Amino acid sequence: MSGIPDLAAVEAMDATDPLRAMRDRFILPEGVIYLDGNSLGAASHAVFGELQQAATQEWARDLIRAWNTAGWFEMPIELGDQLGRLIGAAAGQTVVCDTTSTNIYKVLHAAMEMRPGRSAIVAEGDSFPTDLYIAEGVASTRDGVLLRLAGVDAPTIEDLIDENVAVVLVNHVNYKSGELRDMAALTRRAHTAGALIVWDLCHTAGALPVELDQANADFAVGCTYKYLNGGPGAPAFIYAAQRHHGDISQPLSGWWGHARPFAFERGYVAGTGIRRFLCGTQPVLSMRALKGALAIWSDVDMAALRKKSVAQTELFIQLVEAKCGAYGLTLETTRDATRRGSQVSFLHDHGYQIMRALIERGVIGDFRAPSTIRFGFTPLYVSYKDVWLAVEVLEDILRTGAWKDQRFAVKEAVT
Amino acid sequence: MSGIPDLAAVEAMDATDPLRAMRDRFILPEGVIYLDGNSLGAASHAVFGELQQAATQEWARDLIRAWNTAGWFEMPIELGDQLGRLIGAAAGQTVVCDTTSTNIYKVLHAAMEMRPGRSAIVAEGDSFPTDLYIAEGVASTRDGVLLRLAGVDAPTIEDLIDENVAVVLVNHVNYKSGELRDMAALTRRAHTAGALIVWDLCHTAGALPVELDQANADFAVGCTYKYLNGGPGAPAFIYAAQRHHGDISQPLSGWWGHARPFAFERGYVAGTGIRRFLCGTQPVLSMRALKGALAIWSDVDMAALRKKSVAQTELFIQLVEAKCGAYGLTLETTRDATRRGSQVSFLHDHGYQIMRALIERGVIGDFRAPSTIRFGFTPLYVSYKDVWLAVEVLEDILRTGAWKDQRFAVKEAVT
Repeated sequence: MSGIPDLAAVEAMDATDPLRAMRDRFILPEGVIYLDGNSLGAASHAVFGELQQAATQEWARDLIRAWNTAGWFEMPIELGDQLGRLIGAAAGQTVVCDTTSTNIYKVLHAAMEMRPGRSAIVAEGDSFPTDLYIAEGVASTRDGVLLRLAGVDAPTIEDLIDENVAVVLVNHVNYKSGELRDMAALTRRAHTAGALIVWDLCHTAGALPVELDQANADFAVGCTYKYLNGGPGAPAFIYAAQRHHGDISQPLSGWWGHARPFAFERGYVAGTGIRRFLCGTQPVLSMRALKGALAIWSDVDMAALRKKSVAQTELFIQLVEAKCGAYGLTLETTRDATRRGSQVSFLHDHGYQIMRALIERGVIGDFRAPSTIRFGFTPLYVSYKDVWLAVEVLEDILRTGAWKDQRFAVKEAVT
Repeated sequence: MSGIPDLAAVEAMDATDPLRAMRDRFILPEGVIYLDGNSLGAASHAVFGELQQAATQEWARDLIRAWNTAGWFEMPIELGDQLGRLIGAAAGQTVVCDTTSTNIYKVLHAAMEMRPGRSAIVAEGDSFPTDLYIAEGVASTRDGVLLRLAGVDAPTIEDLIDENVAVVLVNHVNYKSGELRDMAALTRRAHTAGALIVWDLCHTAGALPVELDQANADFAVGCTYKYLNGGPGAPAFIYAAQRHHGDISQPLSGWWGHARPFAFERGYVAGTGIRRFLCGTQPVLSMRALKGALAIWSDVDMAALRKKSVAQTELFIQLVEAKCGAYGLTLETTRDATRRGSQVSFLHDHGYQIMRALIERGVIGDFRAPSTIRFGFTPLYVSYKDVWLAVEVLEDILRTGAWKDQRFAVKEAVT
């Protein structure tokens, strides 16, 4: 076992971790090693503080006046700018609102309008499913739109990008395998064919440095409840490059996107810039929780975050392969750290039962059909010791066959 | 002043008010008479309790597991059924999700799909503006759709309903005048022409008894942050009559509306029933706040609510006309209580300044351009004494000309 870190070695890594102090800002239950922040991030003291203030001070005390006094109305823009700093977006290009699914719908419509005469939407066959469902929905309302999928209609997404393509919808990190795409390269490829590109950042925003402006991206969407820790179902976001702002039109044309939302005019007149993606009244309490979560990031060095994330995924792979190699696990995630998000997936024929057994033992990851067990590493609150202990538990479950217990065989929804 | 109730008389009304105890469930700031619950309802102890539990117990402690253990995933349906009881909808026909604007978009698309060959959407020229903006948005994605408006293309909405109309979108109570439509009669009129009807209940849900099933309505939408007190931007709702459930299709086809949302399938397959209107991941914290707000209603007799609402609007009109009759106010709301929602509007050339002066004195209503001052009466927490005192302050402001102060002339957004 030479070269495999022992407990003392990982404790030493924690001792010198520059992000170590961040963990205290979060609330983590006793007895839990949480490796599912890529599905739902953890709660923080800052979130509780904002929620408390929004509910008991602003709403209860100021009532309707809080829309102005507490700045509720500008929150989508202000939180958008704050979030923009984490994804390489200069101010005025990001807005927080609605859900990722709804935002994909808006963005795809906008992109199709900007490329009249082109009929194809290109996406990945192994995309996060809701992206494809929404692309189908967009296609259903537009004549002659084709949805072409990598892995189905051609081997790779690059193969599908031609002069008939209006827009490419792509996941920056694949939710299952954890594979990270080269944003700048694929964006260039799309632009060379005259197509626009929409990046789904659900699995990268807050997980690693993202450089939308630098990559010359057109649009991006994402959620805020995974690595950004905004809370369950926290509002999502949209990014649109400044150069497109004058051309944005989308059919979810609700009052909040109007040029004069308080004038109560009869006809719709689109507002300016990124506001054109706003539609209805946003859930203020959930939005304020997100405000607390985003505040934490002003103290985070994204380069240090990425460094720790890579070290943790490397450590996890190394430990699992060294200690659990005999039990039929196959690494699904790439070994190339530069092409890996902040997660590691293994395949196992009995992955569902293994994950259930892990969760019962307090090691929380998740399962994705048919056979993926998935572990997310959130550098803000996961320690190297957590990584080491998680593998200890996994090894024990595999060695003893604890996962074969009947109670783990009954399928339950695992969100 | 014979026949005009004095303070002792209104205090006697409060003493025998069967809803009197409800006020204690809400948090109302000192020194405020809140007559704007038709814009943003008040906070309640029940809401704070649910928020606290959702954040510090469920999310922080159970993390991803809370989707199952705390029942988050079923909330849109469960809250929908709870809300359904207040709007005359049998179980399984109402779902809580997204925003009113987004929900109108979904419902109008669904209705247009159900009436192929018909090209018109009919709405009211003086509709709540976002309804019209969204109808425009729907029309923009469908070939040859006409938007026809009452008060613009013909005098009344009934005049516009013919065999070319797919769907009628109508406000149950007009946000400005407070006029209440006869739901059963207009629904019959739409059906006679073979059209479908969508009722916007933003200003009636929680304000008075609504009988969707009994009126044979097709669809309804509404918000939950006005008379239902769900909190700022609380999730909205959609109702669809059972008989239409097999025919619902709408293009915001996100994962939550899928038949098997956790199977991660590549193609969209619509779920059953009202779930077809679900799209993306809902804001759980805002949803849980709403759960607290809706719990209060299990103890409310809707007939008693309506009786108090009518008594309060009648009292307000009577007192304003008796005490402020000399100052140029014109009643905008109908005198016929059976055609009135739970609000009263007056017109005044200087309405904006008058409302600002009222708010500064702690009487909170709102202003709608060009000249409406609007007062909402939420029987759960507004007392008869509140009504009486509000008129005292209004009279004082008008008599002394306090509203003419320079500081009230500067226009600020009034949400």
